[in-house]
Amino acid sequence: VTAMHFADRLAAAVRSRGTPLCVGLDPRWDLLPLELRTRHGGGSLQAAAGAFEEFCLRVLDVVAPLVPVVKPQSAFFEACGPSGLAALQRVLHRARQLGLLTILDSKRNDIASTAEAYADAALGGVLLDGVRHPVWDADAVTVNAYLGRDAVEPFLRSARRDGRDGRGVFVLVRTSNPGAGQFQDLVCDGRPLYLHVAAAVGRWTRELLGQCGFGDVGAVVGATHPAELAVVRQALPEAWFLLPGYGAQGGNAADVAGGFRADGLGAVVSSSRGITTGFPAADPRWEEAVLRATHSARAALSAVSKIAQI
Amino acid sequence: VTAMHFADRLAAAVRSRGTPLCVGLDPRWDLLPLELRTRHGGGSLQAAAGAFEEFCLRVLDVVAPLVPVVKPQSAFFEACGPSGLAALQRVLHRARQLGLLTILDSKRNDIASTAEAYADAALGGVLLDGVRHPVWDADAVTVNAYLGRDAVEPFLRSARRDGRDGRGVFVLVRTSNPGAGQFQDLVCDGRPLYLHVAAAVGRWTRELLGQCGFGDVGAVVGATHPAELAVVRQALPEAWFLLPGYGAQGGNAADVAGGFRADGLGAVVSSSRGITTGFPAADPRWEEAVLRATHSARAALSAVSKIAQI
Repeated sequence: VTAMHFADRLAAAVRSRGTPLCVGLDPRWDLLPLELRTRHGGGSLQAAAGAFEEFCLRVLDVVAPLVPVVKPQSAFFEACGPSGLAALQRVLHRARQLGLLTILDSKRNDIASTAEAYADAALGGVLLDGVRHPVWDADAVTVNAYLGRDAVEPFLRSARRDGRDGRGVFVLVRTSNPGAGQFQDLVCDGRPLYLHVAAAVGRWTRELLGQCGFGDVGAVVGATHPAELAVVRQALPEAWFLLPGYGAQGGNAADVAGGFRADGLGAVVSSSRGITTGFPAADPRWEEAVLRATHSARAALSAVSKIAQI
Repeated sequence: VTAMHFADRLAAAVRSRGTPLCVGLDPRWDLLPLELRTRHGGGSLQAAAGAFEEFCLRVLDVVAPLVPVVKPQSAFFEACGPSGLAALQRVLHRARQLGLLTILDSKRNDIASTAEAYADAALGGVLLDGVRHPVWDADAVTVNAYLGRDAVEPFLRSARRDGRDGRGVFVLVRTSNPGAGQFQDLVCDGRPLYLHVAAAVGRWTRELLGQCGFGDVGAVVGATHPAELAVVRQALPEAWFLLPGYGAQGGNAADVAGGFRADGLGAVVSSSRGITTGFPAADPRWEEAVLRATHSARAALSAVSKIAQI
């Protein structure tokens, strides 16, 4: 058995910070503070990776007292190659040191031993000659379930490894992009595909419920689709939701209101650009802008997520 | 415009080697030749990455004269962390030097600028201050289309960048795992989901056909599902197919026969474990076993893919 259930860890973190706000770490060269671009230089991917790392570490220092969880986006680190992924590893490590939970947003998917390799890298640690080695060592990872149950199972096994705190898996259900409906809204047997995926998430998450009543398999539902969010919440009362698309992508506090349980738990709302790029590039006091944006998002969300203290 | 269309590059490569065989590079610690495990040691992920790299480079030297394309599986390199991904980069580089086409099997998927980051890393090069930097620099990449058209478009843009040879995108249509049908076979508007994805691949690939009659967006269809393969081929005459699951996963030559056009083109058949692990771990002459397995798979496939020379 795991020491502490992932859902309970997430509930405790949300309660301790008093907000469901998750800060997305999506470093992009053209949107970094000018100060960092100038000092690191943009002449190589290695240099850019160094700037990404410094930027994310400084954002972590600002937001760590104020939010329960951060969500690094794997793609932007991968865009700097191996040195970018070394930066990702250090950013994840620092987030844990600061007491933050981490959701690695990498939307991984594959089958059998290949899925196991992704899962163990993200969550459970990679086995070499009987010893487990942590790679990304995140608290949760996002996965794409198009390949079916046997492609998701290795992630569940890795998340539920015995003898340590449990980890979580967030399955893409209804994504936040404008074209999400092309396949996700196709109606099969009387309901859209995304509700078939939601039903599968429900079965998986009910296998292992925490004391808070939620399981360790969550659902990614775009904050930009309030109607679908309400439908998925009804279909899936036992799952934590990860709601991306808040802020820069257009979702607001009212749009995510349907994601929460009455006690304010059940959803984390991720904002990336709204928090980490909401300042002129030349502003030398950009960390103050990050702080203001974090407080502002917390305040907006407090109107729709009244987190009960226990 | 691109210098040479991806579909024509793939057709030329298949014709030049006289086979549709693709060698999958899926390095796993427990299946490496004992010689390599002993020499590199399994005490750290860095050591394992070194063994993975040497193994793959030696496999490349054996198979390069005999096959048109190789398919490194990103997950196994990622399992060794940043050093594993540095090894992947060198393996891809060496494959290109040896005249092989490369399909990076990473099943990436995301939206908007995030998808662009994955796509540019895989295919088109990442832009920093006006200069493009190659990262994985593969000839093609596998993607998961659950998120819809706007999530696939950044990959198409990156593949079709002007002024150089075109690259390709292989979209997961019907995967090779036993549970593939859980979502992919759900019937929507009278046909299974995977045929909706196939229809979208058809629209995308017809945007840019090569002289060989195929486009630059292909379909991944498991070699383990011959009936579905025939249906997808009929629905999608203009797409190159990538057929994984040949060999160790159970697909045989007869199972993939329905994937080819009359001139023997139109599909590449990927074998990983059947070629790179078909020997006792202690065999010091394991490269001869790789060579024999490659010849054997070529011979088996020659019965179902008669490649016309032009």
